[in-house]
Amino acid sequence: MTEILSARWVIPVEPLAVLEYHAVVMEHGRIVAVLPTIVARQQYPRATETALTEHVLIPGLINLHTHAAMTLMRGLADDTPLMTWLHNHIWPVETKHLSEAYVHAGTELACAEMLRSGTTCFADMYFYQDEAAKVVRAAGMRAALGGAILEFPTPYAADADAYIARALASRDEFAQNPKLKLMLTPHAPYTVSDETFQKLVMIANEMDDLLLMCHIHETAGEPPESMKLYNMRPIERLEKLGVLGPNLIAVHCVHLEADEIKLFSERGVHVAHCPVSNLKLASGIAPVKAMLDAGVNVGIGTDGCASNNRLDMFAETRLATLLQKGVSGDAAALPALQALQMATINGARALQWDNLIGSLCPGKAADMVAVNLGELETAPCYDPASHLWHAASREHITHVWVDGELLLDKGNLTRMDVKAIRANAATWGERFRQH
Amino acid sequence: MTEILSARWVIPVEPLAVLEYHAVVMEHGRIVAVLPTIVARQQYPRATETALTEHVLIPGLINLHTHAAMTLMRGLADDTPLMTWLHNHIWPVETKHLSEAYVHAGTELACAEMLRSGTTCFADMYFYQDEAAKVVRAAGMRAALGGAILEFPTPYAADADAYIARALASRDEFAQNPKLKLMLTPHAPYTVSDETFQKLVMIANEMDDLLLMCHIHETAGEPPESMKLYNMRPIERLEKLGVLGPNLIAVHCVHLEADEIKLFSERGVHVAHCPVSNLKLASGIAPVKAMLDAGVNVGIGTDGCASNNRLDMFAETRLATLLQKGVSGDAAALPALQALQMATINGARALQWDNLIGSLCPGKAADMVAVNLGELETAPCYDPASHLWHAASREHITHVWVDGELLLDKGNLTRMDVKAIRANAATWGERFRQH
Repeated sequence: MTEILSARWVIPVEPLAVLEYHAVVMEHGRIVAVLPTIVARQQYPRATETALTEHVLIPGLINLHTHAAMTLMRGLADDTPLMTWLHNHIWPVETKHLSEAYVHAGTELACAEMLRSGTTCFADMYFYQDEAAKVVRAAGMRAALGGAILEFPTPYAADADAYIARALASRDEFAQNPKLKLMLTPHAPYTVSDETFQKLVMIANEMDDLLLMCHIHETAGEPPESMKLYNMRPIERLEKLGVLGPNLIAVHCVHLEADEIKLFSERGVHVAHCPVSNLKLASGIAPVKAMLDAGVNVGIGTDGCASNNRLDMFAETRLATLLQKGVSGDAAALPALQALQMATINGARALQWDNLIGSLCPGKAADMVAVNLGELETAPCYDPASHLWHAASREHITHVWVDGELLLDKGNLTRMDVKAIRANAATWGERFRQH
Repeated sequence: MTEILSARWVIPVEPLAVLEYHAVVMEHGRIVAVLPTIVARQQYPRATETALTEHVLIPGLINLHTHAAMTLMRGLADDTPLMTWLHNHIWPVETKHLSEAYVHAGTELACAEMLRSGTTCFADMYFYQDEAAKVVRAAGMRAALGGAILEFPTPYAADADAYIARALASRDEFAQNPKLKLMLTPHAPYTVSDETFQKLVMIANEMDDLLLMCHIHETAGEPPESMKLYNMRPIERLEKLGVLGPNLIAVHCVHLEADEIKLFSERGVHVAHCPVSNLKLASGIAPVKAMLDAGVNVGIGTDGCASNNRLDMFAETRLATLLQKGVSGDAAALPALQALQMATINGARALQWDNLIGSLCPGKAADMVAVNLGELETAPCYDPASHLWHAASREHITHVWVDGELLLDKGNLTRMDVKAIRANAATWGERFRQH
């Protein structure tokens, strides 16, 4: 079956342009053409057509870093200092409640929220990634999933080797689903030993296309702490251990020096920028413009809901562009189309999935989002690209497709039961409240 | 007629607390009581009741600075450097199109957008404030309006005296409507002469409760430019001219030194903080925490839609709190309830309307907003105050009242024709596009 999605505007990202009165043609979940609507109708006379008359059609957004299950901790202990927040709230809840059932409920809530806000693919670091994978499959989404790797025990595993073993045990099952990808996700340089990092590099080298994701330089305190323990900054240490390469997604990177940015560029390290979390936890503002100028590939992530508290890539990307303008002193910094690249193709590159997603190109999967710019809050419309971030927000998203399947139809989730998910979240919320 | 609004939570701002299962009782547009719902039903057995079962009820938000008519310029020339933006786009459009009809259409679009996002009162600096007043009256909102005062001519007036004369001519008409307040709004220290400032101070002294609103220290370039021309910084100059006092609302104040913050506190100057505009135009981040710590009264404004590009006090307040956490290094900085104060009672104080609005206290006007926290994006809910900014957004606003009149009913504007306003905005957009 051939389907034509005819839109007021299409921004395919590749090329990075706003096309007026264009259509995306899809067959069997793949994009077969992007062309003027009038031509599409002539070339595919038997296709069905969905008219998106006041909409802009963009690639599905890629949330490059989150902890989906933690959506159940949304706003659990806001406005508390970072260490109180971790020690008195987040960790006690995890110690007490971490389980497959929690991961299932939290990931389901997260998937529903992400779909409603235009995210079709996300990269996740948490525990019980097998359970998360079940939810992602049922939701019809795409995801790269990793179980966090730590040296200390949690209900999920006893030590680093056990975490690694659990991750690798999932590999075959993940390989059977083209919408899933397994990552190895060492938590951070300050929670993972040299020995474990070396093991991970060895495994990644042996197994083609295995990605690593790691929190790096999130807070100003990390480099001096590393200097004390290792007599070098975390990035220097990771370089010596062979961790820095094109299969590494470095998360946060708020505190980078110029030579570290240069090194990231040379090694092809990808960065997941999480601006809301960085402000909310008082970590600071990442030097995104400097990284992009140096050729580092930077995507955007929401981080988990305990530190955001939403999985809203529209709000996240808006903040990313606003912050870079504000701190660079240049109102032209990080323009709307470049921000859209960060939220789509850059994430796809980091996940080594840019052959499949991240732009609306013939041959790629039909992962797409339609945004209605004909509403009061988006009137008038001079530039649909800037409207995406600066005027529109998640409530203007009407349709979301993954692999050509309509997962959000006029604002309604087609596969998920919102009422049940909300009720389940409330039940878990009551449990967590009493931690 | 007595009405009970029974809510899951009420945050009256005065006191600054979250009340569970409380109700606001109103009669003839005024609040008569805030008390537990169960008690309200006993005390007012003949009242009608509106049940807001999953909602938090807060005072109407006060947008302390905007240029409402400029909503028609939403995203007109984004991602361009500030001076190109002003000289090649904003000013040419104003020179060509400034008129009563434009102000009417733009203010109408703005009022509709503000009501839908929980703003019940706004402070406006533009031209043709009489025309804006007509729109505000028809919309049922509350506003403080001022026609900008400049030295140079626009289609609205020829010189400073003419601007002042036009403003004062409106005074009697404004005085007849208790929901309107006239301001005198000198544009900025760099566009207004000493002589004009002195006249304005004289007029304000003569006429009780006349407010002044002025852009001050928006960009880093202003103080050095003032040093060149006047051999003093703008704030020192305004102090010498007698402008700094409790009837002044200083807008932006991004670049303030410690002694200037102290002076503002001593003089009782109010500040309108516009974080989105300050980032978007690359002006910087205002030292809000330092101002609040020094006792300066700081409210929140969206600025105009040419530099925001939305009149969304929810997004604005969220950014205000995130930024202060991010730059202070303290995750506990500017907590949710304090941010709500900024968006409500602080604005009311600045407008010298805190006897009437800004909190849900018996005797005050029933200006209120109900926010539904029972949605997927707000599940689970541990703290309704932090959810206001960090999880919810404007689409969760269901009801808005001004003077007890329901202006937004389950998301629908009761007095305004959204379709007509959108069509009108599109027509003006076409004209402006061809500037």
